[in-house]
Amino acid sequence: MSSPSATQNTYPYQNEPIWSRSEKIIARKAFDAALGRELHEVIQEAKKMASQIQQSSDLWDLEYYLTERRKEIDRKYDYRYSQLTQVFGRLLYEKRLREEEELRGLREDKLKSIGSFAKFLAEDTAA
Amino acid sequence: MSSPSATQNTYPYQNEPIWSRSEKIIARKAFDAALGRELHEVIQEAKKMASQIQQSSDLWDLEYYLTERRKEIDRKYDYRYSQLTQVFGRLLYEKRLREEEELRGLREDKLKSIGSFAKFLAEDTAA
Repeated sequence: MSSPSATQNTYPYQNEPIWSRSEKIIARKAFDAALGRELHEVIQEAKKMASQIQQSSDLWDLEYYLTERRKEIDRKYDYRYSQLTQVFGRLLYEKRLREEEELRGLREDKLKSIGSFAKFLAEDTAA
Repeated sequence: MSSPSATQNTYPYQNEPIWSRSEKIIARKAFDAALGRELHEVIQEAKKMASQIQQSSDLWDLEYYLTERRKEIDRKYDYRYSQLTQVFGRLLYEKRLREEEELRGLREDKLKSIGSFAKFLAEDTAA
């Protein structure tokens, strides 16, 4: 009777990977680092856009840019263990994470899932 | 059967003042000048806020500020002749218009309505 999205959040979920304590530490650090870098980018861009505002349309362009980026960041950075392989897959695909360096220490099956999702996104975009 | 707001927009409306050609020119100029000044203020504030952004909360504060100001400006600057006395009354109350200077040439009954609405707002706020 539950909706697909409700089912997705049910815990424990059969196919959901278990994250060990050491993996959780690695995941949190990689997640926060990527988010920090992305926020830094948006801050730099917002400062640049603001400094170049000349007329009201530039002002509302800045508002629109910020709203869209906030929504995108909210959607993208979902720290639920059920979502993390997809989150990291996307960050890898967007080159916001350095796999070798920042995901080192995750179990091989997780790295494989993350890589597969990144590959899927790359092929999906190219198609 | 129509809602109050639909009725309000019906034209011609019995009690609605007629705006002469010369009054329309004065009104347009005063309206545009006040809007231009208010937009200039928002632009200056946005530039200042952006230049001071240090963390993500400052970024989303800027977005929120811009969204609220856009909505407020959209609501406030309603150039329909049926609304203009209230629009000017509000601008006068907010000291965004110089009555003597910028509304000179409007008919006495309009100036009186505009002044009455400004006074109403002042009393309404003080109450």
